[in-house]
Amino acid sequence: MIYIQRRENFSASHRLYNSSWTNEKNFDIFGKCSNKNGHGHNFQLIVTVKGNVNPETGFVMNLADLKSLIMSNIIDHVDHTNLNDDVEFLKGIIPSTENLAIAFWEILSPAINDHGAYLHCIRIIETENNSVEYFGK
Amino acid sequence: MIYIQRRENFSASHRLYNSSWTNEKNFDIFGKCSNKNGHGHNFQLIVTVKGNVNPETGFVMNLADLKSLIMSNIIDHVDHTNLNDDVEFLKGIIPSTENLAIAFWEILSPAINDHGAYLHCIRIIETENNSVEYFGK
Amino acid sequence: MIYIQRRENFSASHRLYNSSWTNEKNFDIFGKCSNKNGHGHNFQLIVTVKGNVNPETGFVMNLADLKSLIMSNIIDHVDHTNLNDDVEFLKGIIPSTENLAIAFWEILSPAINDHGAYLHCIRIIETENNSVEYFGK
Amino acid sequence: MIYIQRRENFSASHRLYNSSWTNEKNFDIFGKCSNKNGHGHNFQLIVTVKGNVNPETGFVMNLADLKSLIMSNIIDHVDHTNLNDDVEFLKGIIPSTENLAIAFWEILSPAINDHGAYLHCIRIIETENNSVEYFGK
Amino acid sequence: MIYIQRRENFSASHRLYNSSWTNEKNFDIFGKCSNKNGHGHNFQLIVTVKGNVNPETGFVMNLADLKSLIMSNIIDHVDHTNLNDDVEFLKGIIPSTENLAIAFWEILSPAINDHGAYLHCIRIIETENNSVEYFGK
Amino acid sequence: MIYIQRRENFSASHRLYNSSWTNEKNFDIFGKCSNKNGHGHNFQLIVTVKGNVNPETGFVMNLADLKSLIMSNIIDHVDHTNLNDDVEFLKGIIPSTENLAIAFWEILSPAINDHGAYLHCIRIIETENNSVEYFGK
Repeated sequence: MIYIQRRENFSASHRLYNSSWTNEKNFDIFGKCSNKNGHGHNFQLIVTVKGNVNPETGFVMNLADLKSLIMSNIIDHVDHTNLNDDVEFLKGIIPSTENLAIAFWEILSPAINDHGAYLHCIRIIETENNSVEYFGK
Repeated sequence: MIYIQRRENFSASHRLYNSSWTNEKNFDIFGKCSNKNGHGHNFQLIVTVKGNVNPETGFVMNLADLKSLIMSNIIDHVDHTNLNDDVEFLKGIIPSTENLAIAFWEILSPAINDHGAYLHCIRIIETENNSVEYFGK
Repeated sequence: MIYIQRRENFSASHRLYNSSWTNEKNFDIFGKCSNKNGHGHNFQLIVTVKGNVNPETGFVMNLADLKSLIMSNIIDHVDHTNLNDDVEFLKGIIPSTENLAIAFWEILSPAINDHGAYLHCIRIIETENNSVEYFGK
Repeated sequence: MIYIQRRENFSASHRLYNSSWTNEKNFDIFGKCSNKNGHGHNFQLIVTVKGNVNPETGFVMNLADLKSLIMSNIIDHVDHTNLNDDVEFLKGIIPSTENLAIAFWEILSPAINDHGAYLHCIRIIETENNSVEYFGK
Repeated sequence: MIYIQRRENFSASHRLYNSSWTNEKNFDIFGKCSNKNGHGHNFQLIVTVKGNVNPETGFVMNLADLKSLIMSNIIDHVDHTNLNDDVEFLKGIIPSTENLAIAFWEILSPAINDHGAYLHCIRIIETENNSVEYFGK
Repeated sequence: MIYIQRRENFSASHRLYNSSWTNEKNFDIFGKCSNKNGHGHNFQLIVTVKGNVNPETGFVMNLADLKSLIMSNIIDHVDHTNLNDDVEFLKGIIPSTENLAIAFWEILSPAINDHGAYLHCIRIIETENNSVEYFGK
């Protein structure tokens, strides 16, 4: 088993807000992250795939394939969007970094299995100080 | 003359949109940067100040003072905001990185002069690939 | 289970020195790291916390809470200090990066448990080439 | 158990090419990575070693020893070389990042055991977007 | 006047070698950079363009245009190549970072002028320790 | 004219303290930077040299020469030291980053002239947020 990692970036806005709470409670919990008009980040998405090395290629999985899989399934849907309003697969979810990681896992894991490899980890870097890792259930 | 640099970060959303144009023309020029609900970035603001070294301190300007000046005049107003809607001093301006740099210069230059030093450059890093520098008129 | 990471920085000096050895033996083992007047680093402390996502917040743990916990328990005690002389909880310990990681774990682990989450890893980056990870006993 | 990491860099060229295939098939699979005259990277090699902390030194392993072990066993052989043609221990191997990680593991693991510690992971960063991790068989 | 910067990366191999010298003299001057089969780098190219801000767009120059100009004129010709053998516009030039910067300037400067802006600086980062800047004649 | 940059790192401790002031005044001005036992940083020194490109080498100045010049004149004297107590050429100077830059300039400028090139800038990065640039008198 060997692990390969591919990074893709996206720039998006979001607002942390629980619609079943008052604005006051939202501000108590989420602080300025709950500001009405949102804010944004340059998110880095790092996808780790594990598998055996194919002796004919020296690859676990062709990075060109992994890249296009990440682009078409995730980046094309989230880059330069508002994560609360614009992304079909995030509807009804508070777009915390944790929830993004879980949502991306659900989409990417079967797509990577189709290429004979296994999704190992979704890492999302939100700022230089904050990040999240998810290894599936 | 010596030059000192202080970096402060802010996370914000924006939308590039000229309200005197049709949506189609906006999309032609600004592409996905004109998406209706905006997107966002982790902006890095790097302020360069020049001056002589005070022999009693070894400082051009106390970085603690420079930091609080940048925080109170800029970061407190733009961090975790929507730059189109939430920032008084950006009203009516397309919040391109170029225009942010010019607006920040107008505010910081006199504030730094009050400390006996001179603003030399406003640099804003929008993404790891894109940045802007402004040295005043 | 999901993992969140928070980075905080501190700048400190230290000297690697075993007081039960001669200066010569210290220099043999620690080289210039044992220089009498010490040296220093910008240390990066990366704390990984694991737990379940709270469906009301989308958070494993509020990063604002994690940040203040790291600040009050660790950074306020070590930032801009000499790690050999100034830090109560490091007294009698050779302040190698390994020993810092273990000492920080002992303090942070119970504090994070009090917030219903679990400390997973203490990572300390000493220089761009050297770092340490500790996952507890 | 505690984990220490040491980074060393090397600059090398390589070509991804399977000599049992036609040039067309090589281009289909490897794209521009199979260009006849090769291309190159600044590779970062991050070696993670695990072990117990020696109470006399505060070290898992002296980083000066780890550094010279990595330099003499790996970097001196691969830095400023062509990985296809110039490196004895890579002869006959397609120099993908995966295969580099496995080849480096085979060499470094016994060398680190001789110092009373254990190799835990070989990580190679090929570009800011692509990396590989190998934890042994 | 305001300055905008766009970064694009390319991975290439090169060999520093003066064909009018003996191999011995090449090794004396260029060291391992003159190894027969070459070596390689992840080069970062940072292009700085200056101009006035267009009040209709808030832009000095549309970064999408600047990006495609850099891609079609430079990156498409040098990425995943051997700079000594594969690049028409580098024929007969020792591909030092200095000479790359000058060659890129000659191509990009008129192309940027055609967009009503001015090339200000070509910066090439060869490794994390080495870089070059050229501001034209 | 073309500009080349070489980075070298050093790890050192220092204390900002004006011995003609009371401890109280030192703390008022320098804050925790005046703590009695000092603190430390990983300093990055970036030296910019300007000159004409030698057509025989493609170099402004051989980076191997520039590196050894920086090592023997600066890094060997300041790395793993206490800048207040251990460095002959800093005696009697408050070791602020500004003063380090000026002191390094005085030493490196004539040494670089001896190689037929010109020192253009000394940049010192003290932390990821603070840096200084000096271009000579």
